[in-house]
Amino acid sequence: MKRITDTELIRSSNRRDIIQTLRRHGELARVEIGQYTQLSPATITSITSELIQQDLIIEQQGELNAETGRGRPKVKLKLNQQAVYYLAIKLSINEVSLILADLSGKIIHKHTKSVLTVSLSQQQLIDVLCQSFSGFLDKYAIERNKLRGLGLAVQGVTEQQGKGILWSPAVKGQQLELVEQLQQQLQLPVFISNDANCIAVALKNLPQYQEVNSLVAIQLGYGVGMGLWLDDKLYQGEAASNTEFGHTKFSLNGPQCRCGGRGCIEAYVGDYAIYRDASAIYNLPQADMLHPSEKQMLDLNHLAEQPHSPMQQIFTQAGTVLGLGLANVMALFNPQKIVISGPGVRAYPYMEAAMRSTLAENLLPYHQQQDVVEVYNWDEDLTGLGIIAIVQQHTD
Amino acid sequence: MKRITDTELIRSSNRRDIIQTLRRHGELARVEIGQYTQLSPATITSITSELIQQDLIIEQQGELNAETGRGRPKVKLKLNQQAVYYLAIKLSINEVSLILADLSGKIIHKHTKSVLTVSLSQQQLIDVLCQSFSGFLDKYAIERNKLRGLGLAVQGVTEQQGKGILWSPAVKGQQLELVEQLQQQLQLPVFISNDANCIAVALKNLPQYQEVNSLVAIQLGYGVGMGLWLDDKLYQGEAASNTEFGHTKFSLNGPQCRCGGRGCIEAYVGDYAIYRDASAIYNLPQADMLHPSEKQMLDLNHLAEQPHSPMQQIFTQAGTVLGLGLANVMALFNPQKIVISGPGVRAYPYMEAAMRSTLAENLLPYHQQQDVVEVYNWDEDLTGLGIIAIVQQHTD
Repeated sequence: MKRITDTELIRSSNRRDIIQTLRRHGELARVEIGQYTQLSPATITSITSELIQQDLIIEQQGELNAETGRGRPKVKLKLNQQAVYYLAIKLSINEVSLILADLSGKIIHKHTKSVLTVSLSQQQLIDVLCQSFSGFLDKYAIERNKLRGLGLAVQGVTEQQGKGILWSPAVKGQQLELVEQLQQQLQLPVFISNDANCIAVALKNLPQYQEVNSLVAIQLGYGVGMGLWLDDKLYQGEAASNTEFGHTKFSLNGPQCRCGGRGCIEAYVGDYAIYRDASAIYNLPQADMLHPSEKQMLDLNHLAEQPHSPMQQIFTQAGTVLGLGLANVMALFNPQKIVISGPGVRAYPYMEAAMRSTLAENLLPYHQQQDVVEVYNWDEDLTGLGIIAIVQQHTD
Repeated sequence: MKRITDTELIRSSNRRDIIQTLRRHGELARVEIGQYTQLSPATITSITSELIQQDLIIEQQGELNAETGRGRPKVKLKLNQQAVYYLAIKLSINEVSLILADLSGKIIHKHTKSVLTVSLSQQQLIDVLCQSFSGFLDKYAIERNKLRGLGLAVQGVTEQQGKGILWSPAVKGQQLELVEQLQQQLQLPVFISNDANCIAVALKNLPQYQEVNSLVAIQLGYGVGMGLWLDDKLYQGEAASNTEFGHTKFSLNGPQCRCGGRGCIEAYVGDYAIYRDASAIYNLPQADMLHPSEKQMLDLNHLAEQPHSPMQQIFTQAGTVLGLGLANVMALFNPQKIVISGPGVRAYPYMEAAMRSTLAENLLPYHQQQDVVEVYNWDEDLTGLGIIAIVQQHTD
């Protein structure tokens, strides 16, 4: 059990609460902040004074009472959005995306560029990241001293302690230490997380999931990722930060998975697996079999639209595997919500029926009544918003 | 995120810490309590004074400095063990076990009796529990006003909110509300949990696991249960308190499970499943197929000792299924320790080789190096000790 002793700890927790409340609700009077945070007026007055002094929030006169035109107008507080910024870098196979957000978490600028990430060494990758960082800030004329932190969202497995990458397809499986060197070179706090965890955090920040205590984010796409929001915080494993839903097993002797094992859920449901299965039946154009393009994947959807198409069966099998995997997640975690997202939801309509029937057939009787699983249409900013929220949690 | 605002909350958390530290380490000087708890001398002085006044801890003169025979002897504090008691009732199929522990958590008395639980209604069960409670206290002349709380450990599924039983084989699957009525009738705080969760808590209290932050307790026996200790606390699902490892799937179209589904891990590894498989091959004595006796299960071990015995294959299959299930647990949670216990470990020697090889074949590369899975020989007090620890957490 965590010990609660330090008054400084309490104050900084309260400070985070107030900033986060203003992020969620915009302009608020002090008394409204009290309603949302349950903090005492004295605490709110003291912390907001500090935040005003630090130029992080702005005080402004509210309007006079509309009816009487009299009375003392309420002073409203709001975040000084341009006071500080956060930068997210998303690292995927041969692609680097940068997103800049303001204090409120709103995206201000973004830019994506192709980089041959798979051929980079540790030092080369650090150089590329630093160059991208500087180029981006220069391009949009962002003052460096306004940056609060940098977040790296990585496709693959990151270390629980947040030092670097344990395994990522973006760097051909190399184990790379990144965080310390980047911190030194950029003189900035740097945080790293895997992309599925970022998606879980970003989903949790959406208005519809704010009251949900346990949310499982399933990310369909190249692989099959999972982010676990349990007991109102992100759950991370002991060594690796990942909770690898995609590498739980559907079948002991199933198809080859890129992890080296066989029969993993990903080996049926990941883009590469679906494309591989389709290639066995259709005469498809050549593709990077570990990373088919978005267009190549969309072409499979068109094939599935044809009547009696074998492509439908491939998607049905993927849906069945996904449904059994989700039944296991329900048995193990019994979460309030399972939200399926990621680029792979492009094929969700072809998988959903089989997924839902398999899930229903394999749920425990006392889980049957719940309507837990839903889809969230893919928004490619989600990963960046998630890592920015993680940076904010650490730097607020 | 939990808000930390209440000084009362902090004080009671510190109080729990001090009591728990004395449980773990026995007699301690105030300065030693400070070393273990990291609490300030002022806090320790204030809380221990209160505990002394409440007669929960005793102050006693330590010995003089052994070398010089001079100096001020250190005052030691220890729990006043007989100040309060905790009662645990373990409810299993046709068996009610009672365990009384003292303030330190040491077992003082225990008693097990046969009760035809499966034929009881809600009211009848409450009556039986109240009678057992009174009979036990009378038998051992325990003053009722010294009882701090009652804990119910139930074979089956309990509600997350702790009101009663959602499903238990001990009461033929009835959904029963127990806690409120028992609290009223006994005038005592009552807590309920499922047996696998209790085992996880009890294991976590053992010296060898005290530093482990994430521990998965697998309970082999009649069924296959799991208790999840994650991020240094017991993880419970949303509605039911259970994390149902035994009902994750080994195979979509596997053997019938008692939950109504097919191919659950329990349908291969649970006592009833192993006995069912053995009955298909051997001419075994008639048994309650859902609940073979301990002797009947031990007889299967003897069969497995014969050379080239088909019984070995049945255990090997069970070990394989268990190994795959544990590989999934590793992928999902990446815990520091997985501890296998429960009465079913009687057959562990016949399952271990297959379990370990299947596990190794299905682990992710970056989990391979870890030595996570171990067995803890079954101790039937473990469940009771776990529920008593839960009662203590709530009443300290």
